Amino acid sequence: MQENPLLKIMNPRSIAIAGASNNAMKMGTMHALSILKDGYGGTLYPIHPKEETVLGCRAYRNPGELPEVPDLAFLVVPAPQVLALMKDFGEIGTKSAVIISAGFRETGDDGKNLEESLREISEKYGIRFVGPNCMGIINTEISLNTTVVPLTARPGLLGIASQSGTYITQSIPYLGRRGIRFSKAISVGNEANLGIIDALEYLGMDEQTRAVALYIEGIRDIPGFLDVARRITPRKPVVAQYVGGSDAGARSGLSHTGALAGPDHIYEGMFKQAGIIRVHSVEDLYGQGWALATQPPLRGTRIGVITNSGGPGTAISNVLDNHGLRVPPFSEKLRESLKAHIPPHAPAGNPVDITFSMEIKTLTRTLTELIMKSGEVDGIVMHGVMMSGYIREAYDHIKELLGNIPLEDLLKALTKDISEDIELPYKYGIPLLLSSFFGREDNYTEQYEDANVPVFDSPEKTARAMTVLNRYRLIRERSAGTFSTVEKKHPEAERILAAAVSHSPAALDEHSAKMLLGSYGIPVTEEVLAGSEQEVLEAAERLGYPAVMKACAADIPHKTERGLVHLSLKDRDEVAVAYRKIQENAPGVPVICYRMVRGSREIMAGMTRHKGVGPCVLFGLGGIYAEAMKDAAFRVAPLSDTDAAEMLDDIRGSAILGGFRGMPPVNRMTLASILRTLGDIAILHPEITEIDINPILIQGESPVVVDALIVTDGGGR
Amino acid sequence: MQENPLLKIMNPRSIAIAGASNNAMKMGTMHALSILKDGYGGTLYPIHPKEETVLGCRAYRNPGELPEVPDLAFLVVPAPQVLALMKDFGEIGTKSAVIISAGFRETGDDGKNLEESLREISEKYGIRFVGPNCMGIINTEISLNTTVVPLTARPGLLGIASQSGTYITQSIPYLGRRGIRFSKAISVGNEANLGIIDALEYLGMDEQTRAVALYIEGIRDIPGFLDVARRITPRKPVVAQYVGGSDAGARSGLSHTGALAGPDHIYEGMFKQAGIIRVHSVEDLYGQGWALATQPPLRGTRIGVITNSGGPGTAISNVLDNHGLRVPPFSEKLRESLKAHIPPHAPAGNPVDITFSMEIKTLTRTLTELIMKSGEVDGIVMHGVMMSGYIREAYDHIKELLGNIPLEDLLKALTKDISEDIELPYKYGIPLLLSSFFGREDNYTEQYEDANVPVFDSPEKTARAMTVLNRYRLIRERSAGTFSTVEKKHPEAERILAAAVSHSPAALDEHSAKMLLGSYGIPVTEEVLAGSEQEVLEAAERLGYPAVMKACAADIPHKTERGLVHLSLKDRDEVAVAYRKIQENAPGVPVICYRMVRGSREIMAGMTRHKGVGPCVLFGLGGIYAEAMKDAAFRVAPLSDTDAAEMLDDIRGSAILGGFRGMPPVNRMTLASILRTLGDIAILHPEITEIDINPILIQGESPVVVDALIVTDGGGR
Repeated sequence: MQENPLLKIMNPRSIAIAGASNNAMKMGTMHALSILKDGYGGTLYPIHPKEETVLGCRAYRNPGELPEVPDLAFLVVPAPQVLALMKDFGEIGTKSAVIISAGFRETGDDGKNLEESLREISEKYGIRFVGPNCMGIINTEISLNTTVVPLTARPGLLGIASQSGTYITQSIPYLGRRGIRFSKAISVGNEANLGIIDALEYLGMDEQTRAVALYIEGIRDIPGFLDVARRITPRKPVVAQYVGGSDAGARSGLSHTGALAGPDHIYEGMFKQAGIIRVHSVEDLYGQGWALATQPPLRGTRIGVITNSGGPGTAISNVLDNHGLRVPPFSEKLRESLKAHIPPHAPAGNPVDITFSMEIKTLTRTLTELIMKSGEVDGIVMHGVMMSGYIREAYDHIKELLGNIPLEDLLKALTKDISEDIELPYKYGIPLLLSSFFGREDNYTEQYEDANVPVFDSPEKTARAMTVLNRYRLIRERSAGTFSTVEKKHPEAERILAAAVSHSPAALDEHSAKMLLGSYGIPVTEEVLAGSEQEVLEAAERLGYPAVMKACAADIPHKTERGLVHLSLKDRDEVAVAYRKIQENAPGVPVICYRMVRGSREIMAGMTRHKGVGPCVLFGLGGIYAEAMKDAAFRVAPLSDTDAAEMLDDIRGSAILGGFRGMPPVNRMTLASILRTLGDIAILHPEITEIDINPILIQGESPVVVDALIVTDGGGR
Repeated sequence: MQENPLLKIMNPRSIAIAGASNNAMKMGTMHALSILKDGYGGTLYPIHPKEETVLGCRAYRNPGELPEVPDLAFLVVPAPQVLALMKDFGEIGTKSAVIISAGFRETGDDGKNLEESLREISEKYGIRFVGPNCMGIINTEISLNTTVVPLTARPGLLGIASQSGTYITQSIPYLGRRGIRFSKAISVGNEANLGIIDALEYLGMDEQTRAVALYIEGIRDIPGFLDVARRITPRKPVVAQYVGGSDAGARSGLSHTGALAGPDHIYEGMFKQAGIIRVHSVEDLYGQGWALATQPPLRGTRIGVITNSGGPGTAISNVLDNHGLRVPPFSEKLRESLKAHIPPHAPAGNPVDITFSMEIKTLTRTLTELIMKSGEVDGIVMHGVMMSGYIREAYDHIKELLGNIPLEDLLKALTKDISEDIELPYKYGIPLLLSSFFGREDNYTEQYEDANVPVFDSPEKTARAMTVLNRYRLIRERSAGTFSTVEKKHPEAERILAAAVSHSPAALDEHSAKMLLGSYGIPVTEEVLAGSEQEVLEAAERLGYPAVMKACAADIPHKTERGLVHLSLKDRDEVAVAYRKIQENAPGVPVICYRMVRGSREIMAGMTRHKGVGPCVLFGLGGIYAEAMKDAAFRVAPLSDTDAAEMLDDIRGSAILGGFRGMPPVNRMTLASILRTLGDIAILHPEITEIDINPILIQGESPVVVDALIVTDGGGR
């Protein structure tokens, strides 16, 4: 495998910066100050047209004057100067750059051209770069901070790549106050050269990084992203916030599938394929990412809840219960052992409530260890650990009664040593998450946070983080999945497409569509295309009653309303009457005839294409509920067997696939196989732009396609 | 109207406290210290068996010794001592009490008896009280804080009543750090006398309180709660967190309706009837409650977004777009006027992005006022206001370049006067919500918060708060609704019930059920109950084909599987054959016969009863989707016309009620009337325990009940 270029960019031994000066109000200066003052051990070379020294470092007029070839060029100059500088760096042999400068693609056509030239220059000199229009990179492992905001936190475990620079700059103090620490951070900017996929790959390999957080507004190469993500997520959790998907109705096509496929739905499905946990706020991106980065893996669904108060205990249990985790009653034995440490009437059964108490060691140590040792839980959520935060609040009220003891002495007297307690999650391999109404102004919050035990500021948030650990458990335990794709075009399908393309530019007729699907093994109605009453009568007799007859042509809309569809035909007579009616309404049109499929469960499947995504497969409720419920799941093709199986459970109405009201469970293998085959067909036949299979009826346990629409690009290929 | 007893409890001129001492480690002492030190202007009388003085106040051995009758008795003594003290206070004429003491109902049977005695004593002496097992009350209007946590914040606008004491004690410092201030707070504890309904009513009337927040684990009298809430919410917003509903499957009945009715669903519907905004975390309870309490009402859906960075702008717009608000493009004119104040390439179209800038007045004043004045928005969300928080972070890096100017001087030099800017929302009557990565360590955050402009710590949370203002807009604009209930039992219904009860203890047969519903005007199939082939043939001829025939008896399950249901009977012959088949399978059973109802849309309605709730009405998808989708809405009976109309839109699949796939829109009046009538029937006939109407088919535009189940309590009444 090729080395990821970010390895070099993130670990430069020397950096040349253009755009820094001795003016504190300049952005470039702020970037340089962070590099100089936050502990970076390499060399910084300022490039400056006039100054002899910049921020105490000797300055050079241009890259050609530098005493060595710097590992990294760092540019904070106006856009038009970027190109010349990149050339200069290229000439001396620098191979890595970070381009902060804005004024490129994001500003319109001129900027787009400028960015194109930038790409050409970098290609010519073999320079790999981050940006332009980004906010820099952070590598805490070597104390390298290139952003405009000082970073003093110790190295952390959460790696982030962001399409918004704000989320690795403005947020630094925010994270500091919450005890969340980056390993590496990359603001990818316009992604003219290296982008979010490279960053994900790099963070996936990086040992310091224990979980990856991604802020995404749009991915240009979804299959490429998926490929990288799939390799990472089984061994390292990835969380992502995606916020590009609200342009509802961005696309509408001829098919229902197209109409249902907004970008948000496609990203939703793609993240599931990738094993990525999607979050919906930047707070969760950091907070839940931090929980994933720091805690031992959750190994089951049993959660112990320990609090100093009923309300938070109830709220925590409520969230856990509603999201697939359990708060199981403790055994009599464990309950007895806990009771020895809590007030007489306090609940010990799980949740355990010590009631308002400053005997903090009961929480941090005694109960926690008893419960961890018991083997009865897989994780613990705790609320109520506090000391200096509370005492500081209470001090004014109580100091006189305590003989005006100085606050610091009081805190010293009350503070217990919890240094071993905070190691319990690692000692027992059981995740622990805290909830507290006190932040780092409380010494215990601070101690836990500094030991990588997350402390959230509300009970529900803490419980939700535990549910996220559980989501990652399921991802970790998920089968890798295989891609046994159909590899060759079926000659029958080629024939149908060739014929159809010559007849009709857009949609295949129903019979052709079904025959094409059938050629790849998708179960369709056994049917006859008939051109005369005699033919249709023979077909009906052979296939059996009740029969269905439909006019068959690609260009007839609203068939039902126009009397061109006849169901439940009981005998020869009814078939004959139906045929004549169709011929009355649409003279000369052939008909299809098949034995009516019995089944009250209607589902649908489909395929649609999106730019930058490629073909996507849909699965959803069918019939009239397809539109009404918009209950559909998407996946990007090709689908693994895991993808297809998960997709079946990914709709709200998935219960209809089970044994249901006396009906047998649906054959899931067949259904999954239809979905995978749809993806394969899309890949094998790029001229097919959309497919709708609606409805698929469940006959007994077997899915049967009773109507299908295939749209082509009109034979342009 | 009777005066709410909380008016007296919350405004005592004097308080006698039992349980306080000179020991700072006693809870009672902590309560007394808060009363004494947080600014309360009334008199505090400690009751203490031994001490001469407590906390500097003269102490009294018992209530009888007090120099005056205290307005309020405040008890923090062990449970067994509470009764005697209450008697003593009763004897001297004290009429109000707050009982902190735990050890009552929450501890089991002994405690329950103790609580019963407490209730008797209070009744005897006419004492109204809060508690027991509560954490006290707060009235910031008179600086009265009776909790154990000091409260120094100025009076605020958010009133809270909580079934968990934690949420008005432990949370006080949390709220202080977020600039959220209580008007009044009531910890209701066990609600032995005054409860959450009284508290809601009191806060609803209280002028200082501009929005009410409720933390609820269970309401004992839902109709009473609904009654009070309905009167408050049109003029004052109420938010509620309910966390009692995760005991899934707490109930299962004979009906689908019963199976679908968990407490969580019922509370969800009840809150909607009440006009209460439900939230799902205590963070939202406070934060979104605070936004509602402080901001001018939102008058439309157009939101302006102003930021100093793209990411937060995108994230904010995404949340707004997804929750019924719009971020409309600004007019050319407004855009031009904004462009004069932002960098050349910065987006001005909405969101407006000033890009990273410390020219904070551009945000706080210039852009905000231009946009507010334009008339193009109804609300504004802003991200990026910051000063001292950021400068403090950056100071170490820049101080040398700035000639080692002292931090305080630098802050002074950079800080602008924003005192008029923070008044803009009130000046223009347009709500403003801020997002910042800096809390109150930033002077601007502090200034906004102190001026009652909420500052949230993440963009998405801020945007969500705006969507909550919009939810309240819809509640405010909602029609009050009328209750034109059926007031008298129908004699036919009484006859059917009397007959059925004598026949069968549990369920009515289908025909009787339909006749009963029909007697109240619910549209059911026109059908005949037939006891012979001759009768059924006559019926079929008269009613028309295709016909439906079903065996009719209350105690035959799985009719379809047993061949006792026949659909689509086309003529006399088929009717005769079907009748004979039924007689073969179930000799002597009468049948019902009706003309088959055509309609592919299946919905259901129902009624079930819950303890403390009374009858609830269900509306949902019918047929096989009823169980699979669990797409149902509940309301508490009786239903207003507003309730019934809203219920129709409250299911995910509500689109099927509209004009849909060539089908006409459903007659909503009829459907709503069915739901209201179900509620009325439940109230008129308490012996009916459950009703299922499933399915209701939509024939053309008309709902028709084709199957119904009515369960009675077996005639016990």
